[in-house]
Parts: sequence; structure tokens; C-alpha cells
Amino acid sequence: MKKHIYIFSPSSAIRDKAVVRRGVQRLKALGHEVELDEAVFATHMRFAGDDETRLAAIHRAAASGADVALITRGGYGLTRLLPGIRYKTVAKAIDKGMKFVGLSDFTAFQCAVMAKTGSVTWAGPALGEDFGIEGEPDDIMQACFEDLVSGQGEGAGWQLPASEAQDKPLHIKGQLWGGNLAIITSLAGTEWLPRVKGGILFLEDVHEHPYRVERMLTQLLYAGVLKDQKAIILGHFTNYKPVPHDKGYRLKTVVDWLRTQVKAPVFTNLPFGHVPTKVALPVGAKVNLEVEGRDAFVLWGHSH
Amino acid sequence: MKKHIYIFSPSSAIRDKAVVRRGVQRLKALGHEVELDEAVFATHMRFAGDDETRLAAIHRAAASGADVALITRGGYGLTRLLPGIRYKTVAKAIDKGMKFVGLSDFTAFQCAVMAKTGSVTWAGPALGEDFGIEGEPDDIMQACFEDLVSGQGEGAGWQLPASEAQDKPLHIKGQLWGGNLAIITSLAGTEWLPRVKGGILFLEDVHEHPYRVERMLTQLLYAGVLKDQKAIILGHFTNYKPVPHDKGYRLKTVVDWLRTQVKAPVFTNLPFGHVPTKVALPVGAKVNLEVEGRDAFVLWGHSH
Repeated sequence: MKKHIYIFSPSSAIRDKAVVRRGVQRLKALGHEVELDEAVFATHMRFAGDDETRLAAIHRAAASGADVALITRGGYGLTRLLPGIRYKTVAKAIDKGMKFVGLSDFTAFQCAVMAKTGSVTWAGPALGEDFGIEGEPDDIMQACFEDLVSGQGEGAGWQLPASEAQDKPLHIKGQLWGGNLAIITSLAGTEWLPRVKGGILFLEDVHEHPYRVERMLTQLLYAGVLKDQKAIILGHFTNYKPVPHDKGYRLKTVVDWLRTQVKAPVFTNLPFGHVPTKVALPVGAKVNLEVEGRDAFVLWGHSH
Repeated sequence: MKKHIYIFSPSSAIRDKAVVRRGVQRLKALGHEVELDEAVFATHMRFAGDDETRLAAIHRAAASGADVALITRGGYGLTRLLPGIRYKTVAKAIDKGMKFVGLSDFTAFQCAVMAKTGSVTWAGPALGEDFGIEGEPDDIMQACFEDLVSGQGEGAGWQLPASEAQDKPLHIKGQLWGGNLAIITSLAGTEWLPRVKGGILFLEDVHEHPYRVERMLTQLLYAGVLKDQKAIILGHFTNYKPVPHDKGYRLKTVVDWLRTQVKAPVFTNLPFGHVPTKVALPVGAKVNLEVEGRDAFVLWGHSH
């Protein structure tokens, strides 16, 4: 089904335009109409244009009438913009059916939209890193994105490690939220972090050593965020450098420690993060988390 | 004046005992009695012993009756311990004259003690990196430490960049607090961050790219911390790696941006951080910040 996809750059500057062009070609090849925001290639130091330019891009995306507003890339730049975003305008676009899609730095936008309006956005791919790569984009990522774009998606499933298998089926109902751990943590103590009671929190990160992951989880723990969650789901934590000083301290150490700190179950292996194989997840939606044996599903029914 | 200095390891493990031994010899050569905590060389993965061991070390330091309790090093490990620290015991030791001294990860202890008890601790050197180096320890660091140990210190002064010179003398009175930016930020939204109204906040960091420094300052801004300060003083931000993507974005960009976000003056060049030349500063004390021309002073009168 042909959909209108609007591409914008709210965070870091695009350095290689070919990546974006390839991504656009791929989306077009899937049958979609793709519209590039006028500032998609803007640059201002690290940023895809100065703050005004990037804010205007977000608001043009909201005003575009597109079915999907997809970021070119993450990086850094959204936290700076949070006070300047017109949340009602964004919520109105979402009410009319627009799906904002992205990840990483985009988590700041997603959390702020959820905190200010309760509207649902989508944790999913970015145009560049997911569709613009030289090789073939990941099958599962593409299938999940197509489900999302078409509104046919009903959930996402994955396999848990054997150690997390549930003999008795587990059903947990809650509001799904999450994304990049560093970004979520960077919103603690601010008005931009949604207060989610009985939530299902998913987290991923990149370039963060396990001790930093632990320090961030500690912040969410002490801030009272973790105790309010019915389940915590960890995606991928990638591209950090173990050091000799670790002496056996690793990501698993942190996950084991986390389990001693919260009553909620902690599941891992969610196909999400800075990895090619990623599902699309509705941030802010009521979902069912179903676990049986090693099979886990996050289910939200039809997305419209 | 001979003082009793208690050395303990509340954070990362010591990997090179020679560094600690050298530091101890130097303090002894200055005429002090130096006592090593029994767990000073303990190791548990990255840590100087498991959580119980490090908590016990803190409490032994508090019970030691020493004049100064000095950390061996920072690293990582204190945020994990915050709920287990007996703050009244620590405050009682401080009331009797004990000075807890350290920096970096130790900022977590200092903030928590201040938040829970209002007691003053000292941002200053660590035994290993400052006194245990192979070459001669920094003169200014040693002089400031000696002033602190002897209780003769009345303040710390430094020279501002020409661009920050004040034609008219500036007098600002407030509660001094601060330390490592990453640690302070990691306490936002938690009970361990002191709520300081009319404060004078000093900050330093290491291994943090300017965009991360900016993201952390943004968090303190959005959390309402920065607007409550009468002055912000930046120490050294060191050992980060600029990348080609920065395209002119640098630490100065962040400082310039910070000045557009807060009404309080932002001063730089404070000799504090992960650098050899560092002053000692009372965290939680009422101080006077005096600036005239390029000369800046933080004055606290006699420290006892």
C-alpha cells in the first residue's frame, strides 16, 4: 500500500548524502511516496542545522500530512530542542494518523511527546543507518517497518535466552515506553520524562560501557522510575570497549545486579537498538507482554 | 603540624599498589601519620571490594578519628552505595573535625552527605593520582592540601580568561557545591542531589565529549538546578576526543551556549578537575566569590 513518508533531520548532520539517497530509493522501491524535508541536509557544526532550523523541520514534518515522519539519523541535538517543540501541533498530526518513527537521540522527542501529550510515536529504524546502507537492509527490520507503515502491525516477538524461559505463561499489561537509555536517563528530574506507572520499559544503548549502563540504571532506580514498571525489556547494548580493569565485570553483571534491585521481571534479547535487526514498537501505547517458554511477544493489536 | 590521615578506597580497585605506597610515603614525608584502611587494596571485579566491603571502608574511615579521610582514587562505584551509607555517622565524624577529601566518583558521596546532612566535605586531591605519581606532586595541589589538612586554608584563587574580566568588583555569597558533572547529573531526579538555592556551583569532567557535557548541562538546566545558582564555575574538562563530525563545535561552543541559558555568571579556568594543579574546595560551605579584573577568589574564611 503506497504511503507518504516524510524524511527529516532533527539531530545530527548528514555527512554522506548518498546514504540518504539510497534510503529514499529503497523506500520508493517499496512503493512509497517519499518527501525530503527542505533542511534534511542542513548543517551547523555537528547539527543538521541550528536549533531553529531543526525545530522548523519537526514542525514541517507535523504539518506535512504524511503517513510516516521518519528521521534520517540520530546522533545528538534533540534534548536542546525540547522546550521549543509545539507539542499540540505534533499531537494533532499524530491524532490524524501520522506516525513519527526513529530511535537513539529521537528518544528525547518521543519521551517529551509522551510526557506532554500522551501521544504514541514509534521506536523503529532511521532512514540512513537502516535503509541507506550499501548492502541489503535487514529483512525483519523491513517487514516490521512495512507493518508499521501499512498499519497492519499487531506486535513484535522474539526469543528469550533459555535462562529467562517461563514455564507458566506470563501476561503483563502495561504502557510501553522506552528507547535509548542515555537519553531517558538524561531526562530524569525534568518535565520531559513521562511518569509511567505500571509501565513496560524497553531500553537499548550504544558506546556505553557496562559500568555506565549500570550508573544510568541506578539513576532510574533512585529516581523511582524502575519500581513503577511491571516489566523491563533490554534490547541490545553494543559497541562499547571492555577494558582490562573490568576483571570479569560485564554487561551480564549489570543485568544480574538489576534483577536484585527490581521486583519486575527483566527480559533481554529484544531485537532493538543500534543493530540491523530491529522491530518497531509503539512508545506510549497500551500493550500486552506475553511470555511462554522462550517466546516473548509485545502485542498492541491493530495500530489503528 | 602532624595530622592523622586515613586512606580508603570507596570506588574503583587499585591496580598498582606502588602508586598508593608512593602517595603514603609522600604524606609521611610531609610529617603526617598515615593509616591505610584494611580494604584499601581489596578488589571485586572493577571495584575496590564488593559493596559491603566498600561501605565498611567508608564507615571505618568515619570511625577512625582521623583528621582527614582521603580516597585512594575515583573511578566508579559510589553511586551503587548511596542507600547503604550511614549518613548520621558520617556527619558526626565531620562535626568532630574530620575532613573527607576526594573528587570524581567521590562527588556522589559528597552530594549525598550534603543532601542528607548538610555537612561539609572537601573536593580535592586523591592519594594515588595526586600524591602517588612518579614525578613530583604539583606544588599548588600540595599547598592547598596542606592548608586544608592544617585547617589554615581560607580560600582559593585563580586567574580568569581576559574575556571574563570584571571591571567592577563582583561579590557573590552562596553555598558552594559541585564536583564531577557526570556524577552530579547522574543524581538528578534522585534524593541524593542537594537542593541548593542561591548556590555557587563548580563543575569538572574527564573523558566527556563537549556534546555530552552540553547534554548534561541541559539536564541540570531542565531540572531547575542551574537557575537556582548565583554563579557557575567551570574547572577543567579534559581527555575527550574531538571528532571530524564536530565541524567547529567545541567546549567553548558549549560554554557560550550555557551563558545564553542562565542569568548567573559563568566563570572558567578554576584549577580543579582531572588535572595536576587543583585547589581544595569545601562542598556545602557558605563562601564568598570575589572577582575583580581577572582575579577570582572563593573565600570561606578559616575552615574551623
